[in-house]
Amino acid sequence: MRKPCKEDKFSFGIWTVGWQGVDPFGVATREALDPWEYAEKLAELGAWGVTFHDNDVFDFAASEQQRQDTIKRFKEACDGAGLVIEMVTTNTFTHPIFKDGGLTNNDREIRRFGLKKILKNVDLAAEMGASTFVMWGGREGAEYDSSKDLNAAFERYKEGLDAVAGYIKEKGYNLRIGLEPKPNEPRGDIFLPSVGHALALIAELENGDVVGLNPETGHEQMANLNYNHALAQALNAGKLFHIDLNGQSGLKYDQDKCFGHGDLASAFFTVDLLVNGFPGGGNRYEGPIHFDYKPSRTEGFEGVWASAAANMEMYLMLKEKALAFRADPLTKELMEAASVLELCKPTMNEGETYAEFMNSPTVNPEQASQREYHFVELYQQAMRHLVG
Amino acid sequence: MRKPCKEDKFSFGIWTVGWQGVDPFGVATREALDPWEYAEKLAELGAWGVTFHDNDVFDFAASEQQRQDTIKRFKEACDGAGLVIEMVTTNTFTHPIFKDGGLTNNDREIRRFGLKKILKNVDLAAEMGASTFVMWGGREGAEYDSSKDLNAAFERYKEGLDAVAGYIKEKGYNLRIGLEPKPNEPRGDIFLPSVGHALALIAELENGDVVGLNPETGHEQMANLNYNHALAQALNAGKLFHIDLNGQSGLKYDQDKCFGHGDLASAFFTVDLLVNGFPGGGNRYEGPIHFDYKPSRTEGFEGVWASAAANMEMYLMLKEKALAFRADPLTKELMEAASVLELCKPTMNEGETYAEFMNSPTVNPEQASQREYHFVELYQQAMRHLVG
Amino acid sequence: MRKPCKEDKFSFGIWTVGWQGVDPFGVATREALDPWEYAEKLAELGAWGVTFHDNDVFDFAASEQQRQDTIKRFKEACDGAGLVIEMVTTNTFTHPIFKDGGLTNNDREIRRFGLKKILKNVDLAAEMGASTFVMWGGREGAEYDSSKDLNAAFERYKEGLDAVAGYIKEKGYNLRIGLEPKPNEPRGDIFLPSVGHALALIAELENGDVVGLNPETGHEQMANLNYNHALAQALNAGKLFHIDLNGQSGLKYDQDKCFGHGDLASAFFTVDLLVNGFPGGGNRYEGPIHFDYKPSRTEGFEGVWASAAANMEMYLMLKEKALAFRADPLTKELMEAASVLELCKPTMNEGETYAEFMNSPTVNPEQASQREYHFVELYQQAMRHLVG
Amino acid sequence: MRKPCKEDKFSFGIWTVGWQGVDPFGVATREALDPWEYAEKLAELGAWGVTFHDNDVFDFAASEQQRQDTIKRFKEACDGAGLVIEMVTTNTFTHPIFKDGGLTNNDREIRRFGLKKILKNVDLAAEMGASTFVMWGGREGAEYDSSKDLNAAFERYKEGLDAVAGYIKEKGYNLRIGLEPKPNEPRGDIFLPSVGHALALIAELENGDVVGLNPETGHEQMANLNYNHALAQALNAGKLFHIDLNGQSGLKYDQDKCFGHGDLASAFFTVDLLVNGFPGGGNRYEGPIHFDYKPSRTEGFEGVWASAAANMEMYLMLKEKALAFRADPLTKELMEAASVLELCKPTMNEGETYAEFMNSPTVNPEQASQREYHFVELYQQAMRHLVG
Repeated sequence: MRKPCKEDKFSFGIWTVGWQGVDPFGVATREALDPWEYAEKLAELGAWGVTFHDNDVFDFAASEQQRQDTIKRFKEACDGAGLVIEMVTTNTFTHPIFKDGGLTNNDREIRRFGLKKILKNVDLAAEMGASTFVMWGGREGAEYDSSKDLNAAFERYKEGLDAVAGYIKEKGYNLRIGLEPKPNEPRGDIFLPSVGHALALIAELENGDVVGLNPETGHEQMANLNYNHALAQALNAGKLFHIDLNGQSGLKYDQDKCFGHGDLASAFFTVDLLVNGFPGGGNRYEGPIHFDYKPSRTEGFEGVWASAAANMEMYLMLKEKALAFRADPLTKELMEAASVLELCKPTMNEGETYAEFMNSPTVNPEQASQREYHFVELYQQAMRHLVG
Repeated sequence: MRKPCKEDKFSFGIWTVGWQGVDPFGVATREALDPWEYAEKLAELGAWGVTFHDNDVFDFAASEQQRQDTIKRFKEACDGAGLVIEMVTTNTFTHPIFKDGGLTNNDREIRRFGLKKILKNVDLAAEMGASTFVMWGGREGAEYDSSKDLNAAFERYKEGLDAVAGYIKEKGYNLRIGLEPKPNEPRGDIFLPSVGHALALIAELENGDVVGLNPETGHEQMANLNYNHALAQALNAGKLFHIDLNGQSGLKYDQDKCFGHGDLASAFFTVDLLVNGFPGGGNRYEGPIHFDYKPSRTEGFEGVWASAAANMEMYLMLKEKALAFRADPLTKELMEAASVLELCKPTMNEGETYAEFMNSPTVNPEQASQREYHFVELYQQAMRHLVG
Repeated sequence: MRKPCKEDKFSFGIWTVGWQGVDPFGVATREALDPWEYAEKLAELGAWGVTFHDNDVFDFAASEQQRQDTIKRFKEACDGAGLVIEMVTTNTFTHPIFKDGGLTNNDREIRRFGLKKILKNVDLAAEMGASTFVMWGGREGAEYDSSKDLNAAFERYKEGLDAVAGYIKEKGYNLRIGLEPKPNEPRGDIFLPSVGHALALIAELENGDVVGLNPETGHEQMANLNYNHALAQALNAGKLFHIDLNGQSGLKYDQDKCFGHGDLASAFFTVDLLVNGFPGGGNRYEGPIHFDYKPSRTEGFEGVWASAAANMEMYLMLKEKALAFRADPLTKELMEAASVLELCKPTMNEGETYAEFMNSPTVNPEQASQREYHFVELYQQAMRHLVG
Repeated sequence: MRKPCKEDKFSFGIWTVGWQGVDPFGVATREALDPWEYAEKLAELGAWGVTFHDNDVFDFAASEQQRQDTIKRFKEACDGAGLVIEMVTTNTFTHPIFKDGGLTNNDREIRRFGLKKILKNVDLAAEMGASTFVMWGGREGAEYDSSKDLNAAFERYKEGLDAVAGYIKEKGYNLRIGLEPKPNEPRGDIFLPSVGHALALIAELENGDVVGLNPETGHEQMANLNYNHALAQALNAGKLFHIDLNGQSGLKYDQDKCFGHGDLASAFFTVDLLVNGFPGGGNRYEGPIHFDYKPSRTEGFEGVWASAAANMEMYLMLKEKALAFRADPLTKELMEAASVLELCKPTMNEGETYAEFMNSPTVNPEQASQREYHFVELYQQAMRHLVG
């Protein structure tokens, strides 16, 4: 297997390899390194880019001077290592002030605090040269059905997003917002639980043109949903601005395993979509291949670096298989037998009136019911490429 | 408990009491009655309205004469019983021709067949005086990630919805479309798995103004999502056109239990939202209280009628509790302590510039973190009304 | 609603009100009190008993002197407050040494360390006068299918449990072990994921006579299972030694909400089983009503105490309803119609041979299929008592 | 990829390829063939064995003559095709008489009917030369917590199983019972929801020695459980008597996809366990490789046969990979680094007393916490073999 290279555009959150292993039932199992140490090591492993939350680099309570110094040192380290800072995001979830959320906190003063923290971080994102500004509203939600005016919550969410998007536009920054949906954890029910809900809210925004999606594999799967269907709907809407790849094994706490270490076949079809696009064409994702995972708490630093590398190796292995699968003439034949491309053809004829349509000849339903779709054979053909 | 009356606007699908109990592992446990028999009995029990799929009333293979005769007889029975036919929907899932869906079937001829069946049924809906035309795309989906061009599937779904909505407009019918999302069953992954996904697709339509939602309790819960959050997002978007109440016990096959016989506390808050609205105002749902449930397969016809009545009784019991809960001064006090209404106030001041906002005084985060939200007490107050 | 009293035998883990709100995405939102402060406050609220993990009272790294001093002070506080220390359990999950588990850690030296910690804590449990010794093997599990010899894991689990049970017997302690199953979190897959798996392992032990179950509401529900079925199977096997009541809203992270604040109807039937027993008699649970919940992270100390009280209030409200439900003649009538008690009668006659049985008259299947079970009516009758 | 051969011991239920595609929302999409036609075709595809429910071969209402004739013809076809009838099972779920179950039906006369049907089928199983008699109690369960005396349900379940097992012993048949757990569908909660619950019940039987497990991949996964952990616990208890391989994609209706077409990586580790056994030895599964799947409803007969073949091809592909994975020296090295085999070593020394154990030297916890487990690397090594 070839090594990852810059052209692969692999990117990692500093918080991924930086996760120390605190979980609801245990304390840290690994010490913290300085942010530049993580970045430099990621570059060594073949990463092209890094991403961070403000408080991955400087403390929540840092003085302005400390903030500046740390950012400077971090940026220099990235530059030195040839790393692109492609995305920046804001931590509005760790500090207790955000225990009821930032943009949708019932407490208006805290909402103002949260929005300021985000806007300040927009400036930083622009300064760092990032092209994407991710917003994960992990604390925007509720455990109790009586605790929020839900209509107001959506109003405030829209207000907050429009404010951030408007700020980006006013400043003329070359940034796009990527919303990251998640169904639950750390809140019982998070307000934008899936790609669908986020797309729907974006459609209601005034400044929605610079707001899109950053769908995470495991987050969609935590709602029992098909990640590739989510990517497809986002692409179809022209809103797949960024991507968070990782692994999840079913409906449980957010595992953030390595990409491909959860639902392997689904990961294959994710890569298939990313490298080959839809069979009949359409929007493509052209951004970084960003991993948002956590090295298992059982692992020490050897395991941290090995797991970071595993994400990239998984992607490259699956990419090779996906290219071969789609190039195989038998695949094309089975796709033909399954009428995959026929779905690209509009159902009504161009210019067909309702009257013409209703009067046009109709297929015989009993006969049409007999047709074979060959879906299992086509899938098995994919499996042959994947594990054969 | 008072009996249901016309003012309650309770409505039932003919297919609910008409379900014969066929499941994946068993044959029918109850015989079929004629559609008018179901309608008449529902009227007796206190229903205000009924709804139906085309093939609940006449067979898929019925001749035009049979179709007309049966419809006529059914309509007369409804009129005679004082029942409103408030919604009509199309069966594009039972017949084998729809095994890969109607609007998104890979086979174009079948798509045309499906669309015709739907348009023909739009005429019937208008003729019956219905105000809502529900579209549940239960077969629009896939089990295998390779089997569909997903981008094309969304294109075709939009084409189909726009065609139906356009037809309604062209004909000048007083009908609105209610999309009914569902995550899975009968397909492995259905294309509009949740309220969010459907709202997002509607936002992409040309004729989206007459397209809204018909969210079903159990369907959202099958994706591990909070039904009341779904209703709220739909209301916030002005798209809650119709509603399907029932009960579901967790992530499993679609149970279609009686309303309130699944997640009881969630059902209470659903009724709270329907009868009291959002605490701070906003869009209200004014349509029928429609039940889409199945009498358990263990029950005979006594159980069928008792279960139909149970839906209405549950609603009325929960309504009484919800009214008392919201009227209780202690509830208002706890909502105040929880800052519930404060969420209605915009985060930024009217006309506040970004510069003013960023320079405004900031709450002390350590102090603000100390605030109590009283969410558990407020919920417990709801429980006291519900079961105390 | 009457106040809780000693006769209710309500009991709380010190770690419940003591939870500071650390979660995977946030730091503590509440300060720590001393363990005796929690105990005294719980007594004030009406609790009869308390329970603790060793490290809820003294630090993992405490010197022997510190350990003794703290235990002494805690015991005196409990005695002073009239609190029974009814159960003690061991923390083999917080410290990083347990990152791959205690009894099933791949590392033998760590297994020995874990077992020693548990045995030492058995002595403490006996010293405190506890009657139950709970073992929750939260770190006994795996995220990766290749990481453990699964057969060896079960062997070691059995060895560990037998060692603890044997130690209890050798010392002559009046203690019984209560295993607490959980499907996942903090491990991807925990080895005793449900009540069934734990019962099965107990059946394989040499000292299984003193080993039973401590089933937690939310843990069974995290595996999509019916908690009351789990209690019933444990009771049927004579193994319901202790109980952990709380609330969970579906398949997600372990929420540890107040009892009744998750699946309310299920909580009602739990209380029904605890206070009324099986309709036809059989084993009863006679132990403490123990709550293992976490005050939501949004709450301050007012909310902590209010939520502790809410558990007890929920139980008492549900108890009143359950007593009335079962005493109602209509309930008895519907149970009769549903043949509930007929299930208590053996299927074969006493002494009936297979030959006699096979030759006995047989029910007519078509006729027998017609019978009504009235299950929905009986459930609705329960709902009438619960929310009517 | 080599073709399946008799030595592979691949076996199929007649009802698998015989499934006509009836689902809760649709009628059959395929016609029925005669049972011998399915068998003959399976033999052609490389199957070694077949299995059936009584009513897969003859109708529920067949006369004794019809029953005999059909069985005879079916047996001759199997013999002619060189097929072993390795397992027989009883349909106690399709006919309405079983709507509340067979062995645990509230109605005693129906329980007697159900038990007779099963015992009669035991005779048939013996006559057919089967070695396993599977019992899937799919209708033994409930939707409503009030509908059953749960203690009585477990009593009746035990009575029924003991009666069947006792009958086998009395007749001297060379048959073992394989219980098949399932969490739900067609009942809301089935009584033996997982392998753990079934093992626990078996431990309570009088004739439990001839009762073991027939775990199905998808059934455990429908309870969010790890199938390989289930197989391991069953093997550890000496109770893995038979196996049902198929595929499931998450928590939804029972999909019965082809083996490997659900959670692919889990399927790999299933095959790894079956062909390589536990790393440190222990019980092995030596029975047939039995597939219990359903050809997707979208497929015609071409797809039926292709999907049957796909099960076997998946198994053979995964077997090849699993053999190579375990033979690779790097795998052994990583297993060593992960201390996988160290788990086989008892935690206490042979003959070690509690006093000796408690006084033995103790590992330094801070140091021990530092150890690396290399679990992610080991898993990645598996992935390299699987998809590299």
